[in-house]
Amino acid sequence: MENKKVRVGILGFGTVGCGVYRVITEGHDSIAHREWLDLAVKRVLVRDFVNEPNIDKAPREVFTTAIDEIVNDPEISIVCECMGGTEPARSFILACLNAGKTVATSNKEVVAKHWPEFEAAAKASGAGFYIEATAGGGVPIVRTLIDAMPSNNIESLMGIVNGTTNYILTKMEEEGLNFDDVLKEAQALGYAEANPAADVEGWDCVYKLAILGSMAFHARVEIDAIHREGITKVSKEDMAIAREMGYTIRLLAIGKKIGGSHGHIELRVHPTMVPLSHPLASVRGVFNAIFLHGDAVDDIMLYGRGAGQMPTASAVVADVIYAAKAHEHRYMTFDNTFGAPQTLTLQKDWISGYCVRLLVKDSTGVLEQIAGVFAKNGLSIHTMMQRGEDSTDGCVTIVIITHHAKELALQTAVESMRDLDCVVSVENVIRVER
Amino acid sequence: MENKKVRVGILGFGTVGCGVYRVITEGHDSIAHREWLDLAVKRVLVRDFVNEPNIDKAPREVFTTAIDEIVNDPEISIVCECMGGTEPARSFILACLNAGKTVATSNKEVVAKHWPEFEAAAKASGAGFYIEATAGGGVPIVRTLIDAMPSNNIESLMGIVNGTTNYILTKMEEEGLNFDDVLKEAQALGYAEANPAADVEGWDCVYKLAILGSMAFHARVEIDAIHREGITKVSKEDMAIAREMGYTIRLLAIGKKIGGSHGHIELRVHPTMVPLSHPLASVRGVFNAIFLHGDAVDDIMLYGRGAGQMPTASAVVADVIYAAKAHEHRYMTFDNTFGAPQTLTLQKDWISGYCVRLLVKDSTGVLEQIAGVFAKNGLSIHTMMQRGEDSTDGCVTIVIITHHAKELALQTAVESMRDLDCVVSVENVIRVER
Repeated sequence: MENKKVRVGILGFGTVGCGVYRVITEGHDSIAHREWLDLAVKRVLVRDFVNEPNIDKAPREVFTTAIDEIVNDPEISIVCECMGGTEPARSFILACLNAGKTVATSNKEVVAKHWPEFEAAAKASGAGFYIEATAGGGVPIVRTLIDAMPSNNIESLMGIVNGTTNYILTKMEEEGLNFDDVLKEAQALGYAEANPAADVEGWDCVYKLAILGSMAFHARVEIDAIHREGITKVSKEDMAIAREMGYTIRLLAIGKKIGGSHGHIELRVHPTMVPLSHPLASVRGVFNAIFLHGDAVDDIMLYGRGAGQMPTASAVVADVIYAAKAHEHRYMTFDNTFGAPQTLTLQKDWISGYCVRLLVKDSTGVLEQIAGVFAKNGLSIHTMMQRGEDSTDGCVTIVIITHHAKELALQTAVESMRDLDCVVSVENVIRVER
Repeated sequence: MENKKVRVGILGFGTVGCGVYRVITEGHDSIAHREWLDLAVKRVLVRDFVNEPNIDKAPREVFTTAIDEIVNDPEISIVCECMGGTEPARSFILACLNAGKTVATSNKEVVAKHWPEFEAAAKASGAGFYIEATAGGGVPIVRTLIDAMPSNNIESLMGIVNGTTNYILTKMEEEGLNFDDVLKEAQALGYAEANPAADVEGWDCVYKLAILGSMAFHARVEIDAIHREGITKVSKEDMAIAREMGYTIRLLAIGKKIGGSHGHIELRVHPTMVPLSHPLASVRGVFNAIFLHGDAVDDIMLYGRGAGQMPTASAVVADVIYAAKAHEHRYMTFDNTFGAPQTLTLQKDWISGYCVRLLVKDSTGVLEQIAGVFAKNGLSIHTMMQRGEDSTDGCVTIVIITHHAKELALQTAVESMRDLDCVVSVENVIRVER
C-alpha cells in the first residue's frame, strides 16, 4: 500500500509555526514508516520576508505572503494556523475551512471566541477542525476528553493551564519571594511577557477554560460566563500561611457541573489553595496539569508542558496526523448534554472553601466578634489560626478557613467584617479546593 | 441521521465485565445523544448460571454459557473480553477476531503474551483489536501514545502501574510500617489478593510494561526481555533512609531507548528511589501514573485509577465507542521503528543510579575501604551517609548513592564489598532514577 500523500500549509512562522515545520519535516521518514503517510509542508504564510526572524529555517520557495496561495492550492488539504490573536487568524481559518481544508490550530484566543463559527464552516464543507494544542499545549487533554472517556459524565475539572503564573507561584512558594520580584525575574528570563497581563490577570486561563469547559460539559462556554481573577494580589504572606496550614496556592481554571445532568455549570479562574497532598500541588514551574473527575473513570490528571515550541508543535502535528487518517471528521455541536443549558451565564454563587486573612486589633473579644459574623452568615469554620501575637503595633493576623460555603454569603460576611471596629483590614480572601 | 446500531457481547461477568455492562446500559441515552450510536449489550458469556455472583445484575436472557452464541451472532460486531488469564481467553478472542468481530479487552496477561497472534487475526478478518484497559486501567495511555503524540520518538517511560504495590509502599512511607504488616492490612481490606505474588513480585507490572514498551518503542516486547523485581525486600529502613535523603521508593516499570534510533531498548521492573520533587513521588495509594519523555512533547504524565470496576470499564467502553466510529482499524506491526531490533532480549547492563545500604563494623578505615571498592569499579559517589554511630553492637549503617553507573559494575562492586572484613552485610541495593 502506498503512503497517503498529505500536503500541509502553515499560517504564521513564529515559535509554534516554525516548530510545526520542524516536526513535520524532520519527522517525515519516521511518520511515513509508522503512519503510512507521506506528510510534508508545502507552503508557509508569513507577513513579509524582511522582518521574519525564522525565514532561514525553511527553503525560500515554501514561503508566501498571500493567503490565497494556500486557500486555492488543491494539493494542500490541511492547514496549521499558528498566528495567534483574533484577526486575521479568524478570517484565514474561515477561508481555509470554506475551501474544504481541514484546520489544526494552536490559537486559544480565536477558538475561545469563535469556535461555533469554525465548527459550522467545517461541517458545511466537510473539513475538520482540530484544537489539541489550544487548551493544554503538549498536554493531551482534547484526545483524552473525546476519545478516552466518552462514556463519562465529567463532574469537575481543575487545571493549571498557564505556565507563567505557575512559575511565579512556585518561585514564591519555594523562595518566599513577593509577586513583583518574581515577575521581574521571570520577565528577565523570558518566561513572562513585557506586558504580562494576559498571563497574570488570568486571560490566558479564561480562553483555555472556555475550550475545556465546552468539551467537558458538552455546552458552549462563552468567555463572559467565566469569573476571572489573576495572581497579582497573592502576597508572600498568603503563600507562607498556606504552606503553614498544609496548602499551596495555584492559579486554577475550575469547571464544575453541579446537581447532575439537570443542574448547572460553574466556571472560574482564580488563585486557589490546594492541599499539599493534592496531585495539582506537586505541579511546579512552567508545567501544566489538568485534573478531571468523571463518573466512571474517577480522578484523572494529565501533566505536561502547556507551552513551548516543540510541545505545542507536537500537539498540532498530532492533530494533523489524526485528521489525515480520519475518514470523516467529528463536529462539536455544543448542545448535546442532557438537560444542560445551551447558553451559560456567569453565576457567582458557587460553593467553595475560603481562606480569609484579617489584620485585627490585639484585644479581648475580637475572635468572638469575628466568629459571630461567620456564624450569622451561615459560614462554618474549618480552621482558625492567629499569628503575630508579639507584634509591636498592637495588631495580629487571624486566618480562617471555612468549610464549603456559598460565595455570596462569604462576600457578605467579608463586608460585615470590614465594618467591625476591631478589624483593621481584610488582607485577602483566597478560595480553597480539596 | 439515524444513530448507528452497535451490539456488543461481553465475555466474563466478573468485576470488569459487569462494569462494562453497567457503563453501556446506564449510558445508553447519553452515548446515543453525544456519539450518535445506539449501543447495547446483547449477550454476556458466563461459565455457568449457578456460581455467577453478578447474575442478578442483568436480565436473565442476555446470559449464555456458549461462546458460539456470540461468535456466530451476526448482529454482534464488538466483543469485550473481561475474563482475565490466558485460556480460554486467548481461544475466545481468536474465535471472535476470526469471525470478523472487533475485540476490546482488559486482559493484560493474554495481550502481553499473545498480542502478535491477535493482531494477525484481526488484520486478516478486518476486525479491530483494542487494549486501552490493559496497560493503565482508567489512565488513558494507549490513546495518548497512538493519537496524541504520534510524531514523537519516545525516549523513556516510567510507570507506577500496580495499585496494590503502590498502596503498600505509600503506607510504608506514611506510617513507617514494614512490608509484611502493610500487606496483611491490604489483604484484610481487599486491596491485595490472598496470593499476592502477581502484584508484589512484579508480574502484573511486567505484563503492562510489555504492552507499554511495545507501543512506545514500536517493537515487540516479550515478557522474557523484562527484568523483574518485586517489593518484598523493601524494608521500612530503606523507606526511612530514602525519605531522609529526599527520595521515596516506588515500584516502577521502566522502559528506555538508549542511543537514539539505532540504539537499544531496556525494560525493567524494580523498586526505585525517585526524588520527592518528581511527579511520580506524589502518586499515592492505589493510584497509577505513567511518566513519558518524547523528543518533541518533552515530559508528560498521565495519572488515574489503574484498576477498579468503573475506571477499567470506562476504558473498555472508550475502546468500544472508538471502534464503533472507526471506518478502518489500525494494526500494530511491531517492526516499524527505524533501526531498532525486532527481537529484544534481556540485557542487564543498563545505566542507573544506585543506593547501597551496608551494615559495617564501626572502626577506622572502613569508609576508605568501601570508597576504594566503588572507585576501583568506576563508580562515582553522589551522596554518602552514616547512621547509628551510637549503636551498642559496634555496627553502623552506611548509605551510598552513586551517580549513573553500569549495573554490572555495581553488582561487581557489591560482590567485592561482601568480601571485605569490615562489611557485616549488604542490606539492600535500590536503583535510583532522577
